[in-house]
Amino acid sequence: MSGQHRTPVTVVGLGSMGSALAEAFLDAGHPTTVWNRTPAKAAPLVAKGAVHAPTTAAAVAASPLVVTCLTTYDQTVAALAPAAAALRGRALVTLNSGSPAGARETAAWAQGHGARFLDGAVKNVPAAVGAEDTLLYYGGDEGVFEEFAPVLRVLGGDTVYLGEDADLAALYEMAVGGTLLPALVGFFQGAAAVQARGLTAASMVRFTVKWFEMINSILPGFADEIDRGAYGEPASSVNMFLEGAEHDGDLAREANLDMEWHRPFHDLLRRAADAGHGEHSISALTEVLKNPGRAA
Amino acid sequence: MSGQHRTPVTVVGLGSMGSALAEAFLDAGHPTTVWNRTPAKAAPLVAKGAVHAPTTAAAVAASPLVVTCLTTYDQTVAALAPAAAALRGRALVTLNSGSPAGARETAAWAQGHGARFLDGAVKNVPAAVGAEDTLLYYGGDEGVFEEFAPVLRVLGGDTVYLGEDADLAALYEMAVGGTLLPALVGFFQGAAAVQARGLTAASMVRFTVKWFEMINSILPGFADEIDRGAYGEPASSVNMFLEGAEHDGDLAREANLDMEWHRPFHDLLRRAADAGHGEHSISALTEVLKNPGRAA
Repeated sequence: MSGQHRTPVTVVGLGSMGSALAEAFLDAGHPTTVWNRTPAKAAPLVAKGAVHAPTTAAAVAASPLVVTCLTTYDQTVAALAPAAAALRGRALVTLNSGSPAGARETAAWAQGHGARFLDGAVKNVPAAVGAEDTLLYYGGDEGVFEEFAPVLRVLGGDTVYLGEDADLAALYEMAVGGTLLPALVGFFQGAAAVQARGLTAASMVRFTVKWFEMINSILPGFADEIDRGAYGEPASSVNMFLEGAEHDGDLAREANLDMEWHRPFHDLLRRAADAGHGEHSISALTEVLKNPGRAA
Repeated sequence: MSGQHRTPVTVVGLGSMGSALAEAFLDAGHPTTVWNRTPAKAAPLVAKGAVHAPTTAAAVAASPLVVTCLTTYDQTVAALAPAAAALRGRALVTLNSGSPAGARETAAWAQGHGARFLDGAVKNVPAAVGAEDTLLYYGGDEGVFEEFAPVLRVLGGDTVYLGEDADLAALYEMAVGGTLLPALVGFFQGAAAVQARGLTAASMVRFTVKWFEMINSILPGFADEIDRGAYGEPASSVNMFLEGAEHDGDLAREANLDMEWHRPFHDLLRRAADAGHGEHSISALTEVLKNPGRAA
């Protein structure tokens, strides 16, 4: 794979995701420079043709496009601070997790040093980097996105530009990612319940997969209700979920599980009912979530 | 559509799901008898050829296969009590929600009246009834499942027999269904967050769909860890989620949202870390859920 005509790329931060990003660039023939605080992590990439820069300043200087994949925005700025002078004119793309405020602060810092800034998020696991349907979205400098879109698509075929605001990817990252831990805990609870009967967690997987596909199928309807603020023709009402909540004790008794984490969901349902949403769509919980401290 | 050679079927309970079941049987040419406490709900089905029975006794007597779709097991038994004498030799299939204990009690009651009993669950929305990939699973009398499997497949192509225990479908229903409200509340929170920025909930849907597909892709690995009790090679550790939890306040500040429902998740993460699972896979939360009342 010749890198002669490919855009040189630098990847800063070689955790499992950063390494997957660098490997995807290498596989696509991009001259790839890498940097990591612990240099040993660069070895597999160097074996594939990457250049390991001794400092972030050297790493940033090596390529017009610099992709960072550190844990937080603070760590990103800390790692790049010694390279600040080299940032001028570079396109800096940050792919860590963090808050919209963190993205805005990092954008201001990078732009203050003359960098063009784009913040993004990889909405998948490292093993999925490079796949045709892997989603990455970006917010910030549109010129950077347009210039480097073909390079960024190497990381995932479903590459989306959200808009000029540098914090949009972080905003969606939080908005979309907020289902992860609750959904997983729901799955772990189910695994514990079937195990209590001598069945395997594995036996649940294909049913849960179908279940999430069902949930996916009903999201457009909920989004439409939320955007119209029209909750009056429910497929599933708040009261239906309240009735279902009464069965929680049954599962606790059946499988001796800790169900305490359900309590706030019951509180939300009751607050929604108290606010007049009992016969409204379950999506009316959105209105309750918007009003912190107004518990009945 | 001639029903001459099709098994006659009775459907008791004509809510949105019961009506969808009856319609699927009618569409497949089964002579279909229906009963509902509020007879008006039978009208659209009668217009399609269903017979509306005046009592549950008449409804049960009309068909060898009786499918109930009421809200609870208690309501099912209450509705069928006047039909108890007619149950002898019938195959009774219950498709309501409820606890494993409720399924066992209903099985005992039905078998006491000479019925053969199968309990099932429709893992999808009414609009999906009849589709090739719609999942229904059943537990109980294997003879009933084998005899009527071709009829039951009319309700969904992905029809699964779980085993002889009459409460298995209810057990999996709870185990699998426990992700629904947490996942939806996560989505509603995200919707509120993007709306606070003047963006639509609809703009989040396709990203969330991808996100649940990603979650589906990682469930087999988690199930394997849980079944082996081996949490030591984490793709995502408890500590990684604890670090992420620190960003919750950011979203609350950004979008003025009620994040109180996150607190028990943080408690679970901390208890897992205190129990020595900090560097273990997030799936180790399963062990914490199994031990109610052992909070640190």
